[in-house]
Amino acid sequence: MTLTGKMLIGQQLLGGTRDVIRAINPATDAPLEPAYAGGSGEHVEQACALAWAAFDRYRETSLAQRAQFLETIAENIEALGDTLIERAAAETGLPVPRIQGERGRTCAQLRTFARTVRAGEWLDVRVDTAQPQRQPLPRADLRQRHVALGPVAVFGASNFPLAFSVAGGDTASALAAGCPVIVKAHAAHPGTSELVGRAVAKAVSDCGLPEGVFSLLYGSGREVGIALVTDPRIKAVGFTGSRSGGIALTQAAQARPEPIPVYAEMSSINPVYLFAAALEARSAALAQGFVASLTQGAGQFCTNPGLVIAVRGPALDRFIQQAADLLSRSAAQTMLTPGIFSAFQAGVGALSQHAKVVARGVPAQGPNQGQAHLFVTEASAFLTNEHLQAEVFGAASLIVACADSEEVRQVSEQLEGQLTATLQMDEADLANAKALLPVLERKAGRLLVNGWPTGVEVSDAMVHGGPFPATSDARSTSVGTAAILRFLRPVCYQDFPDALLPTALQQDNPLLLRRLLDGQREA
Amino acid sequence: MTLTGKMLIGQQLLGGTRDVIRAINPATDAPLEPAYAGGSGEHVEQACALAWAAFDRYRETSLAQRAQFLETIAENIEALGDTLIERAAAETGLPVPRIQGERGRTCAQLRTFARTVRAGEWLDVRVDTAQPQRQPLPRADLRQRHVALGPVAVFGASNFPLAFSVAGGDTASALAAGCPVIVKAHAAHPGTSELVGRAVAKAVSDCGLPEGVFSLLYGSGREVGIALVTDPRIKAVGFTGSRSGGIALTQAAQARPEPIPVYAEMSSINPVYLFAAALEARSAALAQGFVASLTQGAGQFCTNPGLVIAVRGPALDRFIQQAADLLSRSAAQTMLTPGIFSAFQAGVGALSQHAKVVARGVPAQGPNQGQAHLFVTEASAFLTNEHLQAEVFGAASLIVACADSEEVRQVSEQLEGQLTATLQMDEADLANAKALLPVLERKAGRLLVNGWPTGVEVSDAMVHGGPFPATSDARSTSVGTAAILRFLRPVCYQDFPDALLPTALQQDNPLLLRRLLDGQREA
Repeated sequence: MTLTGKMLIGQQLLGGTRDVIRAINPATDAPLEPAYAGGSGEHVEQACALAWAAFDRYRETSLAQRAQFLETIAENIEALGDTLIERAAAETGLPVPRIQGERGRTCAQLRTFARTVRAGEWLDVRVDTAQPQRQPLPRADLRQRHVALGPVAVFGASNFPLAFSVAGGDTASALAAGCPVIVKAHAAHPGTSELVGRAVAKAVSDCGLPEGVFSLLYGSGREVGIALVTDPRIKAVGFTGSRSGGIALTQAAQARPEPIPVYAEMSSINPVYLFAAALEARSAALAQGFVASLTQGAGQFCTNPGLVIAVRGPALDRFIQQAADLLSRSAAQTMLTPGIFSAFQAGVGALSQHAKVVARGVPAQGPNQGQAHLFVTEASAFLTNEHLQAEVFGAASLIVACADSEEVRQVSEQLEGQLTATLQMDEADLANAKALLPVLERKAGRLLVNGWPTGVEVSDAMVHGGPFPATSDARSTSVGTAAILRFLRPVCYQDFPDALLPTALQQDNPLLLRRLLDGQREA
Repeated sequence: MTLTGKMLIGQQLLGGTRDVIRAINPATDAPLEPAYAGGSGEHVEQACALAWAAFDRYRETSLAQRAQFLETIAENIEALGDTLIERAAAETGLPVPRIQGERGRTCAQLRTFARTVRAGEWLDVRVDTAQPQRQPLPRADLRQRHVALGPVAVFGASNFPLAFSVAGGDTASALAAGCPVIVKAHAAHPGTSELVGRAVAKAVSDCGLPEGVFSLLYGSGREVGIALVTDPRIKAVGFTGSRSGGIALTQAAQARPEPIPVYAEMSSINPVYLFAAALEARSAALAQGFVASLTQGAGQFCTNPGLVIAVRGPALDRFIQQAADLLSRSAAQTMLTPGIFSAFQAGVGALSQHAKVVARGVPAQGPNQGQAHLFVTEASAFLTNEHLQAEVFGAASLIVACADSEEVRQVSEQLEGQLTATLQMDEADLANAKALLPVLERKAGRLLVNGWPTGVEVSDAMVHGGPFPATSDARSTSVGTAAILRFLRPVCYQDFPDALLPTALQQDNPLLLRRLLDGQREA
């Protein structure tokens, strides 16, 4: 499959009219062909018109049809074969096995949403049957289901060129909910985006769906992004990226005549707590696990452990020494883009102004290679200096040494919202962990015991979310099957004749759903 | 029980320090004792501090404890007896039977949420058990539950002094979710608010809960309201009122360093469609049902039928004539406040500039009595004049005459978001209704066949919500048991030892919940 450098407006390949984007191989700084001319407001207009025209039909496709569509996308992505792997590796600097794993994850994610669609629990069907004899007033027949919000704009992430990009979690969950999707590709991997976009568009065609179900736009600058978010036909937004980017989109969405929800996954430093008994018993193993998690993928994960919190003392000193030893031997790794590399350099530089560097990784051997950094500071400094909470995207972490459990609690209360919080604890730490738990539940979407925050399972129970600024909407998750709920709203049908009811609500329950029927969940 | 004119900061009765509010009996224009001095930012600070201190303990009360608390509130409200009924009638001008009915509804609502809390479905427990042998990577043990968002600010509504005020739907659902509540009482019924507030505070004490679970503030102007919404300890807002008020609160909430969700139920004109066969067969009955719904409670319902849409012709002419006859004989009714009465007068006056008056009710016989109004206009005018969509709160409605089904569709597409849309239809109208349904599903939260939109059941399947400006968040309902979901967020627990897990997630499922266990719903 030859790359065309074009956008996809429905089934049509269309060249942009704005400034050209060219991917850069961050390992060599070499630009990659072809050039991708950016779209304009007019392209947004066309894609939105198609999406809107497709919406009413797409949202009423049967559960089986929609599930099959998601599965067809997965098959079409797999059919791209090594072309996709090679291009994604070249555009991101990520190793081939990582890209292969991410492709597996992306396709498994699409198939997981297919299963979720088929199971139909997301419809949340509730039936209150009529009570015509009730006093003082009769009760009407009331039936509730969930319907799709409308066309969704998805902004691909830089750090997951497959799993959180064109056919990633936001797209999969929005399509599963019955929403057409318009993706604005991330400028870092336009070729990967084109390949995946064409696989999705082919699935639209393979499944006989209206072409507006999916479009793919490019665009440097904010013209395309803001035009998308402010188009009246767009009803929700999915975004993974920087805090400033997420806030800008959220503000644009709120300033619309009709405000819409934005699901922005933004900024998290993912505190790791080292409790006393665990630290005393196994500081070396903890240091090893920590450094592995910190440096994995050049630290370019939203769940990267950017903060370590512990009570000071000999055990913490040992941990710091052991982590510093390991980190100082860790190789510099190519980062995703020159921009991300220079932001990392700047972030590390800024943190050096406020905290002590205890270790640096092996210096860079090539362009755009991030050198791991480990910092340490005192709780008293952390409590009074907000710069110490700034996310540094990459392999950099800050250890906060506290006087006692009370100071650990104070530091925790001071934290902004997080995607994760990790407790390294042994049996003897249980009481201390229990005491801290209420704070952590208020601060983070996922709490881990004796694991590391990197690595996010796509499953029913996963929460990849959390209070602001981890995300713009703590009521949701962007990973796992519950992500479908972000793109739905309830509608109630009162005293409808069966012939006018949507299938999910009909009297004989043709979809065999477990309804909430007169207050009882059906078996 | 003697009214004190004081606020409730937890268990403490405290006098305000700002301008005095005095309720007015709208039927006589007479001010009512006592005076209620408004609270200041300092009172907000105190209430928020107490709520915050109570939050972690209150949100972890057992399901039984929390349910019992809600039931105790209901009992304590009932124990107020006629004192409450008389005061509410005097403050609102609403007839005693209506207030009695509303008290019944309010207490039933609290008991319904008690049942919902006990059933525990709102916890949405999901368990993905560990798969240590999985390739290429093991799966951790993942467990999800929902936790309360945090203290909630509730703004009472003018038109439901009990059911949507101090212990109304927002308060009941937030308390059910585990959130402490701070109510800003509506200035129209401070005495009713004090009585109910004391019943709630007594329930807090009766049940041995921390006092910060509930506070009640007064305040004219925006000092108290904005201070509440911008306090960092407030994590969500419930509001029922005007479009401008709801938008102001939403903007204040979005402008916070940590934005929070606002559930504002604002503005809806609730279109009623009269399909051809129904109109032909039963115009007189439709006119009767329509006028009864329009004039009920002086038209002061969010679901008041403010818009009628039909194809023009002799049957519509008959309906207009019959509705006009009935309406012109309908008595003027005392409205809730002098302010609401003058806004109604102004709204009717403004609509008269843009549409033809076809009937007026019996003129007012006393102060603050709203005279019902019926207007008619052509679809061509409606499509080009946004003034015709403005909500007039009270007994005023506009009939839009369309050339054909296509124009009905155009008018429908032009509508803003609505709480309800009603279809008056017979067998022969089925195809036309079916064709319009996708538009209505996009526009409204509740769709009715052959009923009238006033009258909102508190049940599982109810949706009292809808796209903007009906509400600020179409993903939610403010009436019915699903309202509890507004005040929750998911948290995932990874590889937690049983001793550290919240009860709902423990291995032996002590709450006997139907969990989503490894992708299967438990029976």
